[in-house]
Amino acid sequence: MKSQTEKYLRYILNPLELFGTERTREILSVNPTIPVIREEAAHVVISAFIYNKDGISEIKNMGLEECLNLKTGNGKIIWINVDGLRKNDVEAIGERFGISPLLREDILAVGQRPKMDEIDDILFSVMNMLYYNEQKKAVDQEQISLVLGKGFVITFQDDPSRDVFDALRSRLKLPASKTRTKEADYLYYTLLDTIVDHYFIVMDKLGEQIEDLEEEIVRNTNKRTLAYINAIRKEQIVLKRSIYPVREVLANIIKSESELLTEYNERFFKDVYDHIVQAIDLVDNYRDMIMSLQDLYISNVNLKLNEVIKVMAVVTCVLAPATVIGGIFGMNFDIIPLSNHHWGFWIAVGLMFLIPVWMLMAFRRRGWF
Amino acid sequence: MKSQTEKYLRYILNPLELFGTERTREILSVNPTIPVIREEAAHVVISAFIYNKDGISEIKNMGLEECLNLKTGNGKIIWINVDGLRKNDVEAIGERFGISPLLREDILAVGQRPKMDEIDDILFSVMNMLYYNEQKKAVDQEQISLVLGKGFVITFQDDPSRDVFDALRSRLKLPASKTRTKEADYLYYTLLDTIVDHYFIVMDKLGEQIEDLEEEIVRNTNKRTLAYINAIRKEQIVLKRSIYPVREVLANIIKSESELLTEYNERFFKDVYDHIVQAIDLVDNYRDMIMSLQDLYISNVNLKLNEVIKVMAVVTCVLAPATVIGGIFGMNFDIIPLSNHHWGFWIAVGLMFLIPVWMLMAFRRRGWF
Amino acid sequence: MKSQTEKYLRYILNPLELFGTERTREILSVNPTIPVIREEAAHVVISAFIYNKDGISEIKNMGLEECLNLKTGNGKIIWINVDGLRKNDVEAIGERFGISPLLREDILAVGQRPKMDEIDDILFSVMNMLYYNEQKKAVDQEQISLVLGKGFVITFQDDPSRDVFDALRSRLKLPASKTRTKEADYLYYTLLDTIVDHYFIVMDKLGEQIEDLEEEIVRNTNKRTLAYINAIRKEQIVLKRSIYPVREVLANIIKSESELLTEYNERFFKDVYDHIVQAIDLVDNYRDMIMSLQDLYISNVNLKLNEVIKVMAVVTCVLAPATVIGGIFGMNFDIIPLSNHHWGFWIAVGLMFLIPVWMLMAFRRRGWF
Amino acid sequence: MKSQTEKYLRYILNPLELFGTERTREILSVNPTIPVIREEAAHVVISAFIYNKDGISEIKNMGLEECLNLKTGNGKIIWINVDGLRKNDVEAIGERFGISPLLREDILAVGQRPKMDEIDDILFSVMNMLYYNEQKKAVDQEQISLVLGKGFVITFQDDPSRDVFDALRSRLKLPASKTRTKEADYLYYTLLDTIVDHYFIVMDKLGEQIEDLEEEIVRNTNKRTLAYINAIRKEQIVLKRSIYPVREVLANIIKSESELLTEYNERFFKDVYDHIVQAIDLVDNYRDMIMSLQDLYISNVNLKLNEVIKVMAVVTCVLAPATVIGGIFGMNFDIIPLSNHHWGFWIAVGLMFLIPVWMLMAFRRRGWF
Amino acid sequence: MKSQTEKYLRYILNPLELFGTERTREILSVNPTIPVIREEAAHVVISAFIYNKDGISEIKNMGLEECLNLKTGNGKIIWINVDGLRKNDVEAIGERFGISPLLREDILAVGQRPKMDEIDDILFSVMNMLYYNEQKKAVDQEQISLVLGKGFVITFQDDPSRDVFDALRSRLKLPASKTRTKEADYLYYTLLDTIVDHYFIVMDKLGEQIEDLEEEIVRNTNKRTLAYINAIRKEQIVLKRSIYPVREVLANIIKSESELLTEYNERFFKDVYDHIVQAIDLVDNYRDMIMSLQDLYISNVNLKLNEVIKVMAVVTCVLAPATVIGGIFGMNFDIIPLSNHHWGFWIAVGLMFLIPVWMLMAFRRRGWF
Repeated sequence: MKSQTEKYLRYILNPLELFGTERTREILSVNPTIPVIREEAAHVVISAFIYNKDGISEIKNMGLEECLNLKTGNGKIIWINVDGLRKNDVEAIGERFGISPLLREDILAVGQRPKMDEIDDILFSVMNMLYYNEQKKAVDQEQISLVLGKGFVITFQDDPSRDVFDALRSRLKLPASKTRTKEADYLYYTLLDTIVDHYFIVMDKLGEQIEDLEEEIVRNTNKRTLAYINAIRKEQIVLKRSIYPVREVLANIIKSESELLTEYNERFFKDVYDHIVQAIDLVDNYRDMIMSLQDLYISNVNLKLNEVIKVMAVVTCVLAPATVIGGIFGMNFDIIPLSNHHWGFWIAVGLMFLIPVWMLMAFRRRGWF
Repeated sequence: MKSQTEKYLRYILNPLELFGTERTREILSVNPTIPVIREEAAHVVISAFIYNKDGISEIKNMGLEECLNLKTGNGKIIWINVDGLRKNDVEAIGERFGISPLLREDILAVGQRPKMDEIDDILFSVMNMLYYNEQKKAVDQEQISLVLGKGFVITFQDDPSRDVFDALRSRLKLPASKTRTKEADYLYYTLLDTIVDHYFIVMDKLGEQIEDLEEEIVRNTNKRTLAYINAIRKEQIVLKRSIYPVREVLANIIKSESELLTEYNERFFKDVYDHIVQAIDLVDNYRDMIMSLQDLYISNVNLKLNEVIKVMAVVTCVLAPATVIGGIFGMNFDIIPLSNHHWGFWIAVGLMFLIPVWMLMAFRRRGWF
Repeated sequence: MKSQTEKYLRYILNPLELFGTERTREILSVNPTIPVIREEAAHVVISAFIYNKDGISEIKNMGLEECLNLKTGNGKIIWINVDGLRKNDVEAIGERFGISPLLREDILAVGQRPKMDEIDDILFSVMNMLYYNEQKKAVDQEQISLVLGKGFVITFQDDPSRDVFDALRSRLKLPASKTRTKEADYLYYTLLDTIVDHYFIVMDKLGEQIEDLEEEIVRNTNKRTLAYINAIRKEQIVLKRSIYPVREVLANIIKSESELLTEYNERFFKDVYDHIVQAIDLVDNYRDMIMSLQDLYISNVNLKLNEVIKVMAVVTCVLAPATVIGGIFGMNFDIIPLSNHHWGFWIAVGLMFLIPVWMLMAFRRRGWF
Repeated sequence: MKSQTEKYLRYILNPLELFGTERTREILSVNPTIPVIREEAAHVVISAFIYNKDGISEIKNMGLEECLNLKTGNGKIIWINVDGLRKNDVEAIGERFGISPLLREDILAVGQRPKMDEIDDILFSVMNMLYYNEQKKAVDQEQISLVLGKGFVITFQDDPSRDVFDALRSRLKLPASKTRTKEADYLYYTLLDTIVDHYFIVMDKLGEQIEDLEEEIVRNTNKRTLAYINAIRKEQIVLKRSIYPVREVLANIIKSESELLTEYNERFFKDVYDHIVQAIDLVDNYRDMIMSLQDLYISNVNLKLNEVIKVMAVVTCVLAPATVIGGIFGMNFDIIPLSNHHWGFWIAVGLMFLIPVWMLMAFRRRGWF
Repeated sequence: MKSQTEKYLRYILNPLELFGTERTREILSVNPTIPVIREEAAHVVISAFIYNKDGISEIKNMGLEECLNLKTGNGKIIWINVDGLRKNDVEAIGERFGISPLLREDILAVGQRPKMDEIDDILFSVMNMLYYNEQKKAVDQEQISLVLGKGFVITFQDDPSRDVFDALRSRLKLPASKTRTKEADYLYYTLLDTIVDHYFIVMDKLGEQIEDLEEEIVRNTNKRTLAYINAIRKEQIVLKRSIYPVREVLANIIKSESELLTEYNERFFKDVYDHIVQAIDLVDNYRDMIMSLQDLYISNVNLKLNEVIKVMAVVTCVLAPATVIGGIFGMNFDIIPLSNHHWGFWIAVGLMFLIPVWMLMAFRRRGWF
């Protein structure tokens, strides 16, 4: 019975190992303003694309100075991507490109809610890029700020190690690329589109997890399953928090009357809007699915309990005649009927077995089990 | 007891066979944009109707070239139906009939959310046709794109094997058909109406399933029931996802000021709108009903458990006197009262049976069971 | 124990007899359009009132021809009531009185959602009259279409056997009746008002049922209760479906700028609107109440289970000393202490009874039961 | 065990005595229109205040005739309060002061939903005054109709025995009273304010009840608690029904462009609006709290059950060795090891006690209880 | 077993000690108007800052007279902070600075819902400052009224002992402070911002509590956990009540067309608005999390129960053979098979142990435990 106990102990310990409570911590401690304890990035990579339909030049890993000296307003579109954030860099670039101090604060803040803002000829939006962390089976967030100005786009990312824009870069280099022939707002649209489309990849992974979970519940339910459901609920909260506000971001961009947005390109932003609405639908479906799984799990546990209790009830009933008959003939009376009878013992034992058999048959006929 | 165990085992295996988790997979993996891995249709069937109130000609299974050469603008209305999608065909037809590239992408995309769009004199909507798959007891979806242009309607369907428009075709051939005397937007309305009306047929089938489920729950509850409830919940999610956004599609068509829509026909679109609102009501009723069934199921399981435990409690109480009396007179003391008495044995046995009978009568009188 | 089993069996069978699953069928199979399999009424009764403030004439059970020949526009108001629907009659009357074919379809359709429509100088609304079926303990629906035209009102009812308008008819015959002195829209208001007021009578009956149910739950809970709760939940869905959309119907009538509605009478429609809002509130209260009863029921079942288990626990504890002591002195050792003692037997038996008594007292002192 | 049973019986009977189902009846049977079976009041008290900033005269218990002869329009404001409703009185007063017949019906109707109406220079609102009935531990409602006309305010109350306006009367008599210096609409505001403020007193009482309930649940849970939770849920429904619609009443008064309302006093109505919004918040908090208590209650019951079952499991385990050892040495074999041994009996008995002790120690070390 | 009982008793008593029901009292008894039983503050501290971009002077702990004599309108901005409220002071200050009597009432009222009002050139808002009470593990509220007038800001606080504005004061004294160079509305924004930002600190603390709770549930569930969940739910209600209405307050300030608000500063108020929206999101996340924890807790309790019952079932099954065999060979028949056999005893005992072992192996092979 020791290994049994240890099996139970493992159930109690496992969930803690696999799905620690630190995740709760991470989700709940969103503190957008006061002590902006953003750690200065150890490593900053600034790169830029300068292009129009005639040509494109890429500057990889440029210095801050070089970046500040980039010329705008000559018919070329500039896309500056800053990977890794330091206060000084952001302030300098912001100053150079006319980004209001309020927006600079937003870029530097941690745990921002996705939002869109227009200040002084700058269209600004901050969103979360989502990555699926296979190891932790969790959704990682990376804050990205997208700045659209007259003839330029600047993107600020937290983490230089991951980038969803790589595919976009390759496409941009192609002369036939649609982006090359259009205004800066089309690039802006492409960036938003890439981020939103990546949400579906992350959700797909979570969908797989939900499916695995369902299979685990149907096949074999244990305490780990419970912790697993709880863990997925947390990820669904993360998804919801990152995805829901993006609808408003996009609605505001579409409603915006900024001169930075050409009327023709509105249709593209509407397209991204359609995608985000679909993503929100999907997040709701996930929630329904998880709830449904939880109900399934609880019912499953109850059914198992019922079966154990049924077995107990059957054993109790089956034991009853043996107990009674054994008790009767075990009494120390001088005169006990059948006690001298040759078949007495066998009659008693026979009854001990026949009565339960008859009871079981009666139970079964009445469909009790 | 072996067959019993196997009966239980079957319960555990059955649900997996009948209601696999792949359905969850299918429902959750909606990925509308990025890798548009639509497989090119193996088989494409293009057919067309060209009609006005004076005559109608049907071209079955025409080639792509022929289709591109169809003349518009001569007072005749053209309805082209494309069964099976290939990128090249869609692009060619789109180019010929002035369908914006953005819409062409929507036609080719997989897993689209129903939506409506107006670009460049084209009124476009994408919806899901629903079929009830008797074998899988599931709702099948087929994406259908409906394009309304000046004097023509084009429909793109995924799957050439199924078609809800057959009844419509026969009606169109009748000279008295209302559609024949009206503009292209009336044909467009008829197509939408056919799709929406088909939703009710599918929901009817699901309604039957819910009724079967209710009967199963009331008659006999087992683990399969649970999996069954879970399966129906999934189908309800599918229905909701396909039907809810159609209300917006229709509201947008009614609000639209497109010149393609004649004012007189607005009333017909309003009629479809009424139907879709009713369909949404019904989907909500289904949800309420399924929830109600789940509650019924859980309560039923609990009641059964209670009865088993009651039986156990009764048996335990009934055994008690026999155990005690048997224990008393089974003790090996030299002096045991009644042990030499002629009726001693019978007195003890009598008590063993009379006390439980008296207990049972007392319990029953107090309504304990 | 046989009668016991049979008592249980009756619980399982009763609900099926009383609250069959066909009701689910009826509620879920709303199919408004496609195969309009409305059976032609076996029996049609057309009657009319022609009145103004000076006089009134009633034509009972008139022929279709006579009805079509009724003259309008002579300052008299006509109210035609058609009990029992046949396609031909509806088409003929519709043609005569200028009711659009679309509305005629609505009149003939089965299972319509309450709605309001205005086409070509006709103000049309379709609603459900509700009746409480005492036998089935269910809410019966009857579709009623109300047509308001210039100087006339036509009502179409499904079922000639029941009519909520009788009281209205008697009032109309009185010369002092307010309706007699007003326009046709006042009659229209009176009809709507009668239907809506009848909802409260039906809800009152359901309220009684809920009260009975509550008393049953508090007094004595059994499996039938469960089926009963489930049955009432279904009726609540029916109520909701018939009553909720009527608010929109009335809001649309109030907003309508139809010339058929005199400005002065708007206040009366507002009055009906107030009633329907109150009815909707009440439907919501019913839902809350039913949920509350379901919780009460489940808790009650659990409490009963707890008590049964407590009894079992007490019996188990009480038996323990007897089992142990009986076991000890029943062992066949040569040397058993007390076995030769004169009071040995009584000491053992005494302990068997005193220890449980002491245990029970200890339990009770600690409030365990 | 008899008193035990009776204790249980008391639990079953108590709730019925304390929280009968008639309350459900009262809540659910709201029938606003058809058979206005308002009983004529046995006793009617009409009183009036006639005041301006220069003086005030009070007429207590005046006759109907006298009331109808009150002169308006001489710069004095009249407040007539009618306690107890009779059809004739209401009709006469309504006729005299220009209250539309539709409003008179509303005044006489029973179970009205709070609403506001403006007809023919009369601003009318009907609300419920709430009283806390200490005896029944329930919320009593009294319908009050407030009529604001040019220079006068009339209030109609159901029940002459209770009046929340007494404090207001004393204040009115003070020459410094703000009400004295203002228009009739300020008096109207004061009356509304008094009613709304009284809601908080009633809610406070219910809040106390919820607190008592929580303490009862934490300390000692029984079946009465359940009935108590159910009873409070009913009162919460009553509160919700009376308070929620008042927000709309006040919003409509604020939006109203009636000449009866001076622009300056709008701020006071806004103040009442703030209070009613707060009251609605509080009703929602009550609901959350009650739900939370219900969850707490159910969990508590489950925990108690768990403990009882744990005790049973422990006793079962503890009994096991005694049963087995007693069974072994109680067998009637000729050769039984240890049976002739001097310490045989003591060894067996020792094992019977030592094994359970060792088991309990093992269980406890593993934290099983 | 005594210490066991006491352990249970402690569970029952502990929650009451730690999480008393007085908290429910505090939350539910919000009574905003009638008997404004605000206790007069024992101790009032009035202090003021008078500043423009050229200089700043601070007057600590000034007298009421001095405060009333402060000159406004000379290009300097005055911030008066009143800690501790007395009716006379508030009335005097209100009179002096043109605060409407209605607003003065709001300042003095207890338990106000956060709201915003504009009367006579005064922009008024009342909010709750939240503090986390480490000792009670509860959220403390302090009502704060913020008055913005032409050239001055006045803040009224309940409690002189705590102040979230200290950091702000130090910043104000710096000549480079942004606030110094701007209008009074910027100071107003800074105050609002400080209060809203402080919400996140309080929520962070609650987030920690939720995390602790989750860990406690996963590790070890007991009755205290239940009371703990209940306590956190109460705090979540407090948070919701204080934070939700602030969104409306800020939306109204942004919409306001008051001349006190400079257009340029609107962006700052929008920033606070973004923060409050995020805070509301977070409160919702907390609710989801707490619900999720409650589900986890209940499932955990059920799983533990299942394990206890499984142990009982196993013990019952294991005992069965011993009981039956002991009963069989304990019967007093003259002829008992094997009774004279040399190995009889050992065969019987062997069976007693071998059958359970075989049963356990069979159970385990079938995965029953």
